[in-house]
Amino acid sequence: EESPAPAPGALPYYVAFSQLLGLTVVAMTGAWLGMYRGGIAWESALQFNVHPLCMVIGLVFLQGDALLVYRVFRNEAKRTTKVLHGLLHVFAFVIALVGLVAVFEHHRKKGYADLYSLHSWCGILVFALFFAQWLVGFSFFLFPGASFSLRSRYRPQHVFFGAAIFLLSVATALLGLKEALLFELGTKYSTFEPEGVLANVLGLLLAAFATVVLYILTRADWKRPLQAEEQALSMDFKTLTEGDSPSSQ
Amino acid sequence: EESPAPAPGALPYYVAFSQLLGLTVVAMTGAWLGMYRGGIAWESALQFNVHPLCMVIGLVFLQGDALLVYRVFRNEAKRTTKVLHGLLHVFAFVIALVGLVAVFEHHRKKGYADLYSLHSWCGILVFALFFAQWLVGFSFFLFPGASFSLRSRYRPQHVFFGAAIFLLSVATALLGLKEALLFELGTKYSTFEPEGVLANVLGLLLAAFATVVLYILTRADWKRPLQAEEQALSMDFKTLTEGDSPSSQ
Repeated sequence: EESPAPAPGALPYYVAFSQLLGLTVVAMTGAWLGMYRGGIAWESALQFNVHPLCMVIGLVFLQGDALLVYRVFRNEAKRTTKVLHGLLHVFAFVIALVGLVAVFEHHRKKGYADLYSLHSWCGILVFALFFAQWLVGFSFFLFPGASFSLRSRYRPQHVFFGAAIFLLSVATALLGLKEALLFELGTKYSTFEPEGVLANVLGLLLAAFATVVLYILTRADWKRPLQAEEQALSMDFKTLTEGDSPSSQ
Repeated sequence: EESPAPAPGALPYYVAFSQLLGLTVVAMTGAWLGMYRGGIAWESALQFNVHPLCMVIGLVFLQGDALLVYRVFRNEAKRTTKVLHGLLHVFAFVIALVGLVAVFEHHRKKGYADLYSLHSWCGILVFALFFAQWLVGFSFFLFPGASFSLRSRYRPQHVFFGAAIFLLSVATALLGLKEALLFELGTKYSTFEPEGVLANVLGLLLAAFATVVLYILTRADWKRPLQAEEQALSMDFKTLTEGDSPSSQ
């Protein structure tokens, strides 16, 4: 009796726009580091530059895309989409880990203090939350133990905290960008140096990418439709809980 | 036949927690400016300090609370709640405007350049979006012209952009805090000066306030229930649109 969800006509355009923004952000981060910071290398003073590039690829672009897989792959089997969602987060985490090692090694070589700034505190918080969310998500949704009712109750929390961790990642990137500008440019920032203007535009594009991903994610009529087997399960669950309630009261 | 929405048991605790966080953020901003920046005054070099305090009160605390009125006043008349929502945004805007004037006057007196930083670009964007959102929201929801169907279609957009503008405001506050720290503390930031640690904690609390407000706002079972007269209207609307669709195809 349930009619099939109408195909959301505008969704592909929004997804394409998000990818255009995400790739522009990655390319512009590369351009900034290449044009104004001497490029990227592991075994030199340029090691620091690995940090912003890895973080933008891993914790902004890939993490953002990982959140979109349930909107993009609407008609694939649920399990395939889940595995892709989990794997994209693994890629994001590994790339971010390389970026983390780069900045700690850079600090050690230069004798700089670690973890004193708001950027670094937010960054460590993002890592801790990301890792915890992945572990809990894996145990509930991919590991075969959790019951359907447990999954249903945890799902909205997982979605909320996933979005929150993504947004905190983008905010942390903005703080890091600002820090890199103020350390390097100093008072020249206020004379509209090309590097400063480029980095400001990059900052606005990071915020725009986060906004578009969040828009696609939260639009009610773009949610993934329940598939036949899930609908059956969902009805089982409804019957079970309705049967439960008199005895549990 | 519609059963009344169950009272959301945990909601008051989350709202209380959000208010505790919000007031702590305002108090801590005051403490930071009082303890480390010489306090607040309009006619002196301390005029700059009006800027962060007004922005935190207006664009973080009051704007956040304005988003929560539909969750807090669940059983008041819809119109009363709307007027309160609109008025809180007016207060937030006026206070933020004082904060905006303070920083421009400070720059003028000191001969500093305006609007070169990512913080300032994000801030101007917040002002423009906030103002546009208020005007469009007023014309659709409070001005008596718009039809019920127009309001229903615009509502989800209004809610999404309201949340996005609030989040961008908090991100802009974090950028400003970071800027104020790096300008003033410079390399002393890395020696864990008390001011730096206080400001980092303030930054984390700002992010925590935004997270709790967003959680309350997005939790599906805490949404405001439709009231009797709205349900009647909603059914009228459903009948109308269902009657419409064959002729419009």
